[in-house]
Amino acid sequence: MRMKTTKVLNMVIAQSGGPSMVINQSLVGAVLAARGSRKIGRILGARHGIQGILDGDYIDLRKPTAAKLEAIAATPSSALGSVRKKPTADDCRRIFEAFKKRSVGYFFYIGGNDSADAARIVAEEAEKEGYPLVCYHIPKTIDNDLRSCDHTPGYGSAARFVASAIKGDDLDNRALGGVKIDVIMGRDAGFLTAAAALARQNKNDGPHLIYLPERPFELAQFTEDVKAVVAKLGRCVVAVSEGIRSADGTPVAAQFANGERDSHGNLQLSGTGALGDALAKYLKANAGISRVRADTFGYLQRSFPGIASKSDATEARKAGAAAVKAALAGKVTKGTIGIQRKKGKTYAVTFETMPIASAAKETRSVPDNFIAANGHDVTKAFIAYAAPLVGTLPHCEIF
Amino acid sequence: MRMKTTKVLNMVIAQSGGPSMVINQSLVGAVLAARGSRKIGRILGARHGIQGILDGDYIDLRKPTAAKLEAIAATPSSALGSVRKKPTADDCRRIFEAFKKRSVGYFFYIGGNDSADAARIVAEEAEKEGYPLVCYHIPKTIDNDLRSCDHTPGYGSAARFVASAIKGDDLDNRALGGVKIDVIMGRDAGFLTAAAALARQNKNDGPHLIYLPERPFELAQFTEDVKAVVAKLGRCVVAVSEGIRSADGTPVAAQFANGERDSHGNLQLSGTGALGDALAKYLKANAGISRVRADTFGYLQRSFPGIASKSDATEARKAGAAAVKAALAGKVTKGTIGIQRKKGKTYAVTFETMPIASAAKETRSVPDNFIAANGHDVTKAFIAYAAPLVGTLPHCEIF
Repeated sequence: MRMKTTKVLNMVIAQSGGPSMVINQSLVGAVLAARGSRKIGRILGARHGIQGILDGDYIDLRKPTAAKLEAIAATPSSALGSVRKKPTADDCRRIFEAFKKRSVGYFFYIGGNDSADAARIVAEEAEKEGYPLVCYHIPKTIDNDLRSCDHTPGYGSAARFVASAIKGDDLDNRALGGVKIDVIMGRDAGFLTAAAALARQNKNDGPHLIYLPERPFELAQFTEDVKAVVAKLGRCVVAVSEGIRSADGTPVAAQFANGERDSHGNLQLSGTGALGDALAKYLKANAGISRVRADTFGYLQRSFPGIASKSDATEARKAGAAAVKAALAGKVTKGTIGIQRKKGKTYAVTFETMPIASAAKETRSVPDNFIAANGHDVTKAFIAYAAPLVGTLPHCEIF
Repeated sequence: MRMKTTKVLNMVIAQSGGPSMVINQSLVGAVLAARGSRKIGRILGARHGIQGILDGDYIDLRKPTAAKLEAIAATPSSALGSVRKKPTADDCRRIFEAFKKRSVGYFFYIGGNDSADAARIVAEEAEKEGYPLVCYHIPKTIDNDLRSCDHTPGYGSAARFVASAIKGDDLDNRALGGVKIDVIMGRDAGFLTAAAALARQNKNDGPHLIYLPERPFELAQFTEDVKAVVAKLGRCVVAVSEGIRSADGTPVAAQFANGERDSHGNLQLSGTGALGDALAKYLKANAGISRVRADTFGYLQRSFPGIASKSDATEARKAGAAAVKAALAGKVTKGTIGIQRKKGKTYAVTFETMPIASAAKETRSVPDNFIAANGHDVTKAFIAYAAPLVGTLPHCEIF
């Protein structure tokens, strides 16, 4: 009787781009799936994405106990560390040398569209160089803008933070009046800003105006919109994307931001209150409203502990496991995991293997049927889309 | 047998100043205590503090069901609406006319030091004018700066938000490095900023630097402090109070803020990202650090739903009830409720009647024994003081 031999290869996994509340769920999902297979030998976590591979900086992911991994999974931010780095052909050659030295046959990269592009480059360079590598991208982005997914892991939890924050802030605005502007993350896609609408529970609840990057933003129209709400309700809560832009495509924040760009060419929009302050100053000067305040939700949107959406956490875990299973199945040597929503009344999703390129570079925008005709609100279709991703929010009662 | 007659008078209750996550607990605590007494007839909630009394804008607080009141109690922000208004002698005369018309003998005002001062003015003017009024202030402020209290209702929950936010943000900073500056509420007192220290769980956890208004802030020293942390850890998380000031007492924010002041003469510090942005810009230019980000936590600190501290919620409820009980006892016709911590190993508090003036005007600062000798951290004594007010934070795990 012949024994069936299994070729054992080692695996590297890493995290890239902006952290999220559930990116560690994907990491742990992948690690646990890998631990369950005899095809995988060492499970190495590279610190700070591909930078860790270039630096030889790894964590042995076979060592942590199951309890430790569960605690990591429940912790926000990227436990392996992250990086924003587009690999060059030379970087790739150095990566394959490092992989060869360590007998690495499986590579998993968790991140958004830039990270998917990095994984695509690594996979394509591996083919060119003749390095045998099974390479999978695992989706993650609070921006919800991957073309390969109905929605992305990380979005539901960030949206839950935004909707909760707006809900509380709207109550605050009810108490003291005036205009409140809340600036929400989302460079090109308005999905996260749109989620502010989930805060509404009672009549006249805010946000009263929602501005997405998908519609041109003009200060004059904005001023008229705010004045109309104030005339009706005596107050106004505005949810505005950090990525709003003029009709000619120029980001409104561009004139206020410090001009810093990352290696993918993206302008820094977060980590500054400039846009909100500029809008507040403009309104005070031009709308005749004395009390105008602006908050920029900033990094808390992606890193606040203890409030992750349950369905988001579950799906992030499954997406990580799905990538390892697909890699081990051996049919497709490079791919990304697409998350698709099943048709039907009950919310459910499937996980599919798709080409990495479908998640890379070009992003998805909020579709037209999710944006109200007036250009400053969302539709019921969006609410129906987003509600199951966010879960039930804390109930708030008013007199 | 003679029947004992009870003089029935009506009651007005209102909320004033900045909202908090538990100010409605105090409202509901007072209303439920009032409902349990035969001495009180109508229970009127004035909308937007004393403005509602001047406008005759009331809610009948005998109407809501117990379930409705419980839901109100669990809701952040001031359910009756709030106001920032210092009553004049003329306002007071109009208030007493309104009270007389409605047979109001009891007045309760929930708020911070400015609201206590408003209650003090109303109480003193009532004596001058010969209007028989039992007048109580119920403490509330996220700033934790009332001289009459070991700690104030609202502080524990805001501190819980701050500590949670810093905990997540520190993990975010671990992942991507650089310097992160978080600007925290607290005009004159650094208690809320100090609570950032509760985020620390593991070695080298942030916040690495904590700047309070109680110690002079100098940009040169700040730059040296940050550079030293970055040299050691490759990153740095800074918690800084919005109220930090130079050695000569000038608020650092004063040169960046818009100069707006309320009727108590307070400069607007919140609802703008100017201070954080200015500090980040300064560090980039002067510390040779490329990645510097700033977030201003803003109004979320006082209004985020679903994360209130349990002990804070319980104490806020009891403070409201204590004020009504003290008012009904009849011994003291004007007062505030002081919350004092019992001595002993187990955390417990008492509620005492104190003169309103002890909560009004001059505020309390973070005491010297809570501030580290280096001027940019807190002591173990502060941690021991604040931990039971905030409760256990979500556990976060790192590799």
